[in-house]
Amino acid sequence: MTETPRIPLSPTTRSTLTRSKERARIERAELDAVLDAGLVCHLGVLLGGAPVVLPTIYGREGDTLYLHGSTGAGNMRAAMTGPVSVAVTLVDGVVYARSAMHFSMNFRSAVVHGRPVEITDPAARVNALRVITEHAAPGAWSRVRPPSKKELAATMVLALDLTEASVKVRSGGPKDDPADIDNGGVWAGVLPVRQAWGEPIDSADLESGLAVPGDVRERAEPSLLPVR
Amino acid sequence: MTETPRIPLSPTTRSTLTRSKERARIERAELDAVLDAGLVCHLGVLLGGAPVVLPTIYGREGDTLYLHGSTGAGNMRAAMTGPVSVAVTLVDGVVYARSAMHFSMNFRSAVVHGRPVEITDPAARVNALRVITEHAAPGAWSRVRPPSKKELAATMVLALDLTEASVKVRSGGPKDDPADIDNGGVWAGVLPVRQAWGEPIDSADLESGLAVPGDVRERAEPSLLPVR
Repeated sequence: MTETPRIPLSPTTRSTLTRSKERARIERAELDAVLDAGLVCHLGVLLGGAPVVLPTIYGREGDTLYLHGSTGAGNMRAAMTGPVSVAVTLVDGVVYARSAMHFSMNFRSAVVHGRPVEITDPAARVNALRVITEHAAPGAWSRVRPPSKKELAATMVLALDLTEASVKVRSGGPKDDPADIDNGGVWAGVLPVRQAWGEPIDSADLESGLAVPGDVRERAEPSLLPVR
Repeated sequence: MTETPRIPLSPTTRSTLTRSKERARIERAELDAVLDAGLVCHLGVLLGGAPVVLPTIYGREGDTLYLHGSTGAGNMRAAMTGPVSVAVTLVDGVVYARSAMHFSMNFRSAVVHGRPVEITDPAARVNALRVITEHAAPGAWSRVRPPSKKELAATMVLALDLTEASVKVRSGGPKDDPADIDNGGVWAGVLPVRQAWGEPIDSADLESGLAVPGDVRERAEPSLLPVR
């Protein structure tokens, strides 16, 4: 990672010898933060010589990104153990500029490149599924039924190393041309956007009298929760 | 479009002769709705034989998805006129199930496959940039400076046909195993998530006395706007 915020656009900068250890440490923390904050990733694989991008859930633990899929999807199974690219993007705002070409988005994005390895060790597989489940629903794993042998047999679990990963962040206002700023008269700024949780909805088949658990309740927007 | 909701996972279903015209019409409306509601897409291209996924802005007009990029990124320029896959995903909620393997996300996603064509006609280029700008910031194009000749020369504008596109929607509660439902005792349901706008932030270099324009004000969350 580096100036590689631009990895996707200028992949020749992937390897850089000039960076400081301090900056690498900061970027690694930024990368983890983006990966941990996202809900879904976009996984790019090669299928029949063409790229295919699909949204999927994931989880991170240490230097590893975990993915999973159905063992039934043969093509996809093969594709997911070839070269892949995984992107997680958080949009933070629309940047309104004084000229059309300077409109932009504020965002944080992480992109990981590599070749996933299938996990076969039974304990490691269950751990990876725990990481993925806890990523989607922190605190839920310990209170739900764990995967059965049958479910495990139908599931492919993959590990992608975070070695070749980059993070890119854009924040702040528009970068307008000085002439446009001098001319004045056009509003410029940022319209922030964020992910907001709603109020938990009971499943239609839920037995009566079962309260929303703490891990769900605490994740919901406090302002949207019913007053207690 | 087809059964193609599942394009990414079962690409052999791409062409289907059995579907009804009515369903195709509905799916087309759903596809447009997802593409129009997204803020960024994830573009997958082939670079050096490997897939590369990056977030980027876009716009849709009729049967065409527009993308743009810098003419300076030679590799990317070549890659973007090869086979590509474009995904737009809107996450609507986290699905909490009674067992780990039934956790899921509610989402709407559109995936488009094809080979973008570079737009060279000057008027068509400006129109495509208008569509992209209006997608990011509806209502803004007419009140900001249009692209200059220099800006246009530095910009690659691409058109991707929506012919090979699919839409996939998951909604509702968990699909738990009957035995887990019978056993009871575990909360199940959905924690909704949505995109929420904040209050517009003036650019630091904005002259004083310039009000937030109507197109920005109306997009912001009404509840977050200052009382007037």
